[in-house]
Amino acid sequence: MDIEFREGISEVIATTRNDQPNAAPMGIINRNFLYALIYKDSHTFQNIKKNREMVANFVLDPLIYVKTAFADLDSSFFRSDEEVPVLTAAYAWVEFACTILERPTQKTALVKLLPRRSVILNRPISSVNRAFYAVLEATIHATRYKTLKDPKYRECVPYYERIVRKCGGRQELEAFQLLKEYLA
Amino acid sequence: MDIEFREGISEVIATTRNDQPNAAPMGIINRNFLYALIYKDSHTFQNIKKNREMVANFVLDPLIYVKTAFADLDSSFFRSDEEVPVLTAAYAWVEFACTILERPTQKTALVKLLPRRSVILNRPISSVNRAFYAVLEATIHATRYKTLKDPKYRECVPYYERIVRKCGGRQELEAFQLLKEYLA
Repeated sequence: MDIEFREGISEVIATTRNDQPNAAPMGIINRNFLYALIYKDSHTFQNIKKNREMVANFVLDPLIYVKTAFADLDSSFFRSDEEVPVLTAAYAWVEFACTILERPTQKTALVKLLPRRSVILNRPISSVNRAFYAVLEATIHATRYKTLKDPKYRECVPYYERIVRKCGGRQELEAFQLLKEYLA
Repeated sequence: MDIEFREGISEVIATTRNDQPNAAPMGIINRNFLYALIYKDSHTFQNIKKNREMVANFVLDPLIYVKTAFADLDSSFFRSDEEVPVLTAAYAWVEFACTILERPTQKTALVKLLPRRSVILNRPISSVNRAFYAVLEATIHATRYKTLKDPKYRECVPYYERIVRKCGGRQELEAFQLLKEYLA
């Protein structure tokens, strides 16, 4: 495989299929083997249960992280030339065969990921941008707020917004604006 | 030029030369043109004033960000086959010709950056890792603590340490450990 997942957690957009393709942010965990902890009540998990497959999309556009965290993507966001669901925004992706360990007492299942095929369309030189990361962190907090309704998860928004305004470009500003609309 | 700086601020390691080569983290600002705001009392600025040149190194190892924020790198960290100072850890770099605008009332000078040459050795597929950014954010806070001695800049350390422990690999853990030693 040409794509190496860093030790620790890599944040990707996971795509899965059913009647409609689905996309959601996901952490791919690399600790001796590759796996993900996936909420059992999610579309992603239902689709994996049905098809035992998942695609990890490598995406640089922060808007895609925000959108997929809160809403469904319509079919125009997916490539039409691939059998598995792949985002048009992905510069590279990895298809996985999935093995599910349900873990009865937990809300998440442990899904083992076996790479089946990897595609690299592009190798962008992507400079480190604090605003991109600030969008991601704020999105993670915002999804917790949406699920748990605890206002503490919304308190960080001004902090991350300052980083976005200072360090970001149009993409990050637009993504953060959308995030605030989902939180409103 | 093959390397495009994202709109907003790109975090790189700036290298400059004098009798000894110097390395320090720097934000390259892309707002219609490329520039950096550089503390006038820094080695980086003294070197730019002397040579009117600077190299932006693209580096993935978080340890290099921490080290260069707090200490000098010995010559083994620099390539010996380049006329300008370049880090061996850099997978790509851009040489700049520099024009200085001193701004008398400010602590920082505005340095305009004109790309002269760019080199891409490698195009790593680098997945998004929250721990890498957490090291960077904590380093930025820590340098402010070192300069201003205000304990509020140290309060974020446990927050970023949790992200590093959850999402990081050995590189991020090692970098964070070193950061804590510099802060002790």
